[in-house]
Amino acid sequence: MSTPSRRFFLGGALGAAGLAAAGGAGFSIARADEPEAQAAGRGTVPFYGAHQAGIATPAQDRLAFAAFDVTSANRDDLRTLLARWAAAASQMAAGLPIGAVETSPDAPPIDTGEADGLDASKLTITVGFGPSLFDHRFGFAPKRPAALADIPALPGDALIEDISNGDLCVQACANDPVVAFHVIRNFARLARGTAVMRWSQLGFGRTSSTSTAQATPRNLLGFKDGTRNIKAESEDEMREFVWVGAETDQPWMKGGSYAVTRRIRMRIESWDTDYLSDQEKVIGRSKTSGAPLTGSGEFDPPELDKRAKDGSHVIDVNAHIALASPLTNANKKILRRGYSFTDGIDQATGLLDAGLFFIAYQQDPRTQFVPIQRKLGQHDLLNEYIQHTSSGVYAVPPGLTGPGDYYGKALFA
Amino acid sequence: MSTPSRRFFLGGALGAAGLAAAGGAGFSIARADEPEAQAAGRGTVPFYGAHQAGIATPAQDRLAFAAFDVTSANRDDLRTLLARWAAAASQMAAGLPIGAVETSPDAPPIDTGEADGLDASKLTITVGFGPSLFDHRFGFAPKRPAALADIPALPGDALIEDISNGDLCVQACANDPVVAFHVIRNFARLARGTAVMRWSQLGFGRTSSTSTAQATPRNLLGFKDGTRNIKAESEDEMREFVWVGAETDQPWMKGGSYAVTRRIRMRIESWDTDYLSDQEKVIGRSKTSGAPLTGSGEFDPPELDKRAKDGSHVIDVNAHIALASPLTNANKKILRRGYSFTDGIDQATGLLDAGLFFIAYQQDPRTQFVPIQRKLGQHDLLNEYIQHTSSGVYAVPPGLTGPGDYYGKALFA
Repeated sequence: MSTPSRRFFLGGALGAAGLAAAGGAGFSIARADEPEAQAAGRGTVPFYGAHQAGIATPAQDRLAFAAFDVTSANRDDLRTLLARWAAAASQMAAGLPIGAVETSPDAPPIDTGEADGLDASKLTITVGFGPSLFDHRFGFAPKRPAALADIPALPGDALIEDISNGDLCVQACANDPVVAFHVIRNFARLARGTAVMRWSQLGFGRTSSTSTAQATPRNLLGFKDGTRNIKAESEDEMREFVWVGAETDQPWMKGGSYAVTRRIRMRIESWDTDYLSDQEKVIGRSKTSGAPLTGSGEFDPPELDKRAKDGSHVIDVNAHIALASPLTNANKKILRRGYSFTDGIDQATGLLDAGLFFIAYQQDPRTQFVPIQRKLGQHDLLNEYIQHTSSGVYAVPPGLTGPGDYYGKALFA
Repeated sequence: MSTPSRRFFLGGALGAAGLAAAGGAGFSIARADEPEAQAAGRGTVPFYGAHQAGIATPAQDRLAFAAFDVTSANRDDLRTLLARWAAAASQMAAGLPIGAVETSPDAPPIDTGEADGLDASKLTITVGFGPSLFDHRFGFAPKRPAALADIPALPGDALIEDISNGDLCVQACANDPVVAFHVIRNFARLARGTAVMRWSQLGFGRTSSTSTAQATPRNLLGFKDGTRNIKAESEDEMREFVWVGAETDQPWMKGGSYAVTRRIRMRIESWDTDYLSDQEKVIGRSKTSGAPLTGSGEFDPPELDKRAKDGSHVIDVNAHIALASPLTNANKKILRRGYSFTDGIDQATGLLDAGLFFIAYQQDPRTQFVPIQRKLGQHDLLNEYIQHTSSGVYAVPPGLTGPGDYYGKALFA
């Protein structure tokens, strides 16, 4: 198969209209005055590079996540889609529409327009491939990485298939929710005829810091979350735990990572009636300060062996932080990048359908997320208050090298 | 019935623990460093005053809205609830938790904690009463304002009862979604045993400006929305169209307003395939600039009578802005304060469940929202692309005068 021409990309990015004027320059769309354009949270994140943005990028405040199923069995359709997405993503990451809003009156606008005039707001777009993409349809089976194993059934799972898995995933993160939503909407539109959105999830507040420059946020349990998370500044840990390297059986994944997503519903009404002392026992930390129960400062290392005078562990052996700690997980870590969510009232119960949409990046889920979650699912004191209702795992390929590159190009070679 | 004591309020706000140390002072909760605390979007909005905040307040970026049904038929229970809400709201509006997170280890934390360390982010909390609150249960029937009439069936309605109406409503707006969500969660918690949340709606981007200092945002149709909205700086219009005055049959509502909410789902996939010229015809404005089709600047007044050379109206007589214009509505206006929403994928159709959660404040829905929407529902070209799926109308009483006051105090007199 020949290399796609430049026209292929532009035609893809711009849809049927395929105007020659496009490609990232030449738009003259008036932008709203931005007197605070220098404020934190605004500006662009570089799109091209060794890794896809949205993994090591300091976690933005808002998430729009979507999984897609490919409905065409035509390999060229899929290739066109992935090239369209790449071209569109490069535009949006630069704070530009994916194409002109005003072209011909006799054509639909190329960009849907709702983000017009908004700052890029640190937008990152991260694309991944689910295990099902490597089935018989596209001839990708020989290129399926061993690390992209299906997530096995785990203790306590209450998964809903309609909102789990998917052939493709898109994680859009930004400090403006309209900017993030604009991505998944336009990706869905570019996919028409080739793929359909399978499920989506909005997140309204980050629940992890991924940079030493960020304060630790709180999740909907009211506790600080992600105190001991991998920070992107720790290049050694990123190399050891997050980025795919020489260990992979699939060289096309080098520089990539594996995303695991879990929609974790919290029984917050029950949690809210629990005593402070029990909440702190369940988590293993002090609620207000975030300090481990063995320390006084948020960043004091938890002392899991420390005993009280009566001989009991100060941090319960089944406390969430004890079971999730690298100390009890063969020193394995994952990079968490989750968001709080609420999807309104569960009409069946009258309870809030809210919780944490967990996203974690890692080098190999088989030795990182899966064993950690197996143990948590069995023993975590927190299980009384949470339920995993959705699961996904995706191979996130390395970053795109420049305007000629597209997601999964190596799969089509 | 005697006047509630101060203890009544504090006890209410603080739940069973009812600590004497509370009441807005004395919390020593560490707050995250806020180097940009002076940036726009942060800080507090005064809570007490002639009107409830959240109506004339410049529209914040995020919404958490909830409607509640009162499950107790006991008038004192309802009064206690409304006093608890008032005390809690005053705390949260000041950027404080509703009570201590760390009190006794043997009690649940009073505040759920997720907003701890976050700035008030211009939080406003606005409480209203639905028509059903004035039924036989609490003896309020003689105090039901005539303007709080049930919204009649309107052309094109596709209302879902489970997400419509309700005895009470709470609109929480802030520039941080966690701060807004924190309000409805804690209100639900304070209501336990007396009222249950009936439905809720998150909004992720304001779709109206309500101040001359704000730029006009875009809705999910990609068009600027609210260009001709009432601006709070126009005191004459606020008095004529928004605030309840001497015209009311219920003096307790003076200084209040009436909120109408409509969840307007947009068929965005269809809209996105519509030609630019047709989109602009439907709305009556230019997509990028927001100018009416008879002008060149966003704020040029639409000329509804202007004809093209072929004799046709330049702005279609059934264009959205033509039908919604005060010029064709007996010069009536409403204050719009809506938000974009998306609630994921409609599993039945695979389409995005997204649109605009419309909120409008007015002096009398019978002569403002209802006739305008009746006409829009019949003739608006936009009807091909939208559907009203939820409806609510609420009497929003005036502002609270100070710490002794509570929502609906006059109803219990």
